[in-house]
Amino acid sequence: MKIVFTQSNLLRALNLVQRAISSKSTHPILQGILISTEEDVVRFVGTDLDFGIETYIDGDVIESGNVVVPTGIFHDIIRRLPQGDIIFTRDDNHKVEIKSHNSVINIQGFDAIEYPDLQTIEQKGIIEIEEGTFKDMIQRSIFAVSQDESRPLYMGALLEKSEDNMTIACLDGYRLAIRSGKIKHDTKETEVIIPGQTLNEISRIIGNSEKKLSIIIGEKHVLFDLGYTRIISRSIKGEFLNYKQIVPRDYEIRVKVDTSLLASSIDRAYLIAREGENDLIKFIIKEDILTITSNSEIGSIFEQVPILLEGGELEIAFNGRYFLDILKAIEDDEICLDFTTNINPCVIKPLNKEDEYTYFILPVRLFI
Amino acid sequence: MKIVFTQSNLLRALNLVQRAISSKSTHPILQGILISTEEDVVRFVGTDLDFGIETYIDGDVIESGNVVVPTGIFHDIIRRLPQGDIIFTRDDNHKVEIKSHNSVINIQGFDAIEYPDLQTIEQKGIIEIEEGTFKDMIQRSIFAVSQDESRPLYMGALLEKSEDNMTIACLDGYRLAIRSGKIKHDTKETEVIIPGQTLNEISRIIGNSEKKLSIIIGEKHVLFDLGYTRIISRSIKGEFLNYKQIVPRDYEIRVKVDTSLLASSIDRAYLIAREGENDLIKFIIKEDILTITSNSEIGSIFEQVPILLEGGELEIAFNGRYFLDILKAIEDDEICLDFTTNINPCVIKPLNKEDEYTYFILPVRLFI
Repeated sequence: MKIVFTQSNLLRALNLVQRAISSKSTHPILQGILISTEEDVVRFVGTDLDFGIETYIDGDVIESGNVVVPTGIFHDIIRRLPQGDIIFTRDDNHKVEIKSHNSVINIQGFDAIEYPDLQTIEQKGIIEIEEGTFKDMIQRSIFAVSQDESRPLYMGALLEKSEDNMTIACLDGYRLAIRSGKIKHDTKETEVIIPGQTLNEISRIIGNSEKKLSIIIGEKHVLFDLGYTRIISRSIKGEFLNYKQIVPRDYEIRVKVDTSLLASSIDRAYLIAREGENDLIKFIIKEDILTITSNSEIGSIFEQVPILLEGGELEIAFNGRYFLDILKAIEDDEICLDFTTNINPCVIKPLNKEDEYTYFILPVRLFI
Repeated sequence: MKIVFTQSNLLRALNLVQRAISSKSTHPILQGILISTEEDVVRFVGTDLDFGIETYIDGDVIESGNVVVPTGIFHDIIRRLPQGDIIFTRDDNHKVEIKSHNSVINIQGFDAIEYPDLQTIEQKGIIEIEEGTFKDMIQRSIFAVSQDESRPLYMGALLEKSEDNMTIACLDGYRLAIRSGKIKHDTKETEVIIPGQTLNEISRIIGNSEKKLSIIIGEKHVLFDLGYTRIISRSIKGEFLNYKQIVPRDYEIRVKVDTSLLASSIDRAYLIAREGENDLIKFIIKEDILTITSNSEIGSIFEQVPILLEGGELEIAFNGRYFLDILKAIEDDEICLDFTTNINPCVIKPLNKEDEYTYFILPVRLFI
């Protein structure tokens, strides 16, 4: 096996596929990256069995073959080599030689035959969406995915396609994040639950461009096809909560408020709240002022934020951290907070484009 | 006590003095910052007893007084307040109120009387040096300070003044770093051993400017006077090694080499070396090539660096990490490596300005 790569191409492939390598893998082969020649391109694969990445780069294939290289040291070496050509060879004992300018490095590889290659997928559904739109949707919702390992279903996010929209829904029992994005009209509905960790990685890998990406949904897996790069992940089986039913449609009280003024007040109030129990902050909504207070053993805070109020007065309490997470995910300068009573959720929406996103957060009940 | 600060002034003072606060302090008062009014300025002090910082900022002192505020929460709050005026008051129970725009925060402070104020210093010696020169000297030598707590003397660096030079010397038993900088002519010699941690902090606090800083040496302490800011630290007592005696003056073999080519070769060789014992890399000096090799269980490396050689051939081995640290601290494009035998130190110097710096590193003996 002998290939000539450019250092920049090789490094780009490694930067990408090493994201799938888990340092926790107990099997040594899973700490490696598969390199295999395919006619005039070279394929790189990394996987931890639940999540895998494959990518293709140009390489001058002088002698075909395949090998598994240990990720850490191989990546460290390639990163430190100067720009220009790298001659990569492998002998019959899976020993790898890396030559560049005045450097020659030998490291022991593994037999590629032992490598668990990526799953193949039988397509049950497909969603096509722009990379930038998908990246934004993930980044503005994924925080609400549950971290509770006893409820694995909600450690995933629901992706749904309907006509010309894709929706992503994340919830953790305290709050709910729903984001929608435009897709090309397609009448075939489809849905899948994808692990939050997978979506987090996807959002780091994909760019902000208008380039299309295909999400191919199989029985137990989902494939993200970016062209030269494909990412495959297990999906999660189960019946996701019918979240549309639990979002209140009506409201008694509507507060219009500047997003960043509200966020900085809650940010400060949370400094006090986090020293106490439940990270509790209290809202007092009255006339044209939203007052936010919090108390803990280290002190107290009193914040006032100007609002436009529709409806009556209300006192209601929230977990400050959870409320702040939502506000940080919102791009609009002004938002609506909709309330019914102080034991019902607060619904957070943009002013005139409610189909783009909806967040909701449960209040903390106050007994005094 | 009542003061009006600007948020930016107050934040600048806190950013600075909080550097002296150790989260490990067991006494709660030491986790606080002293704020006290002095006519028309306000003094801020942070200390962990070994190391202290005081600074003065402008404030509109409406009612004089002093108080100790808890560092973490106070700093977090001020950082999150908007620009503009902050009204700071303290009541008779040491309770502090912070008012800004629509925010009012109350936190519990401590009685300033309990605060251990900074040491006063009886001056035994003084060194005046430009901030930028001193910062650079520290950053290019401090890595060689010993981390071995059983040899506290060498966890410090020796500062020496002689005529128009100041020298800083750091050593850890394996390597030695000596850096000199110009100062104003002054015939009075003086020296002091300063903890490495102190110098690290100083190098972060001072700027790159030509502004003068005074190092005032007392019996047990040393004071760095930056004008509005003063930093005080304990010094270390003891007899520092007479390092000038151990640096070889002559050489048998001199290698002239490009600093960054050598550094990147050693950087790569160290990747292999660090998986083995002693981080061992081997130099083979012959004709116009320095060959660097290393072997460990993960593989082997062979690097060639072009050199200009004066003298005979040599094989010698080093700890790759230690050699790399030295090369990273050198600003010149080209350096000299001077050798006598493979059991004597290698002296690393600039080409034609040996009075600016000298490094030396002991070889690792090879038994095969």
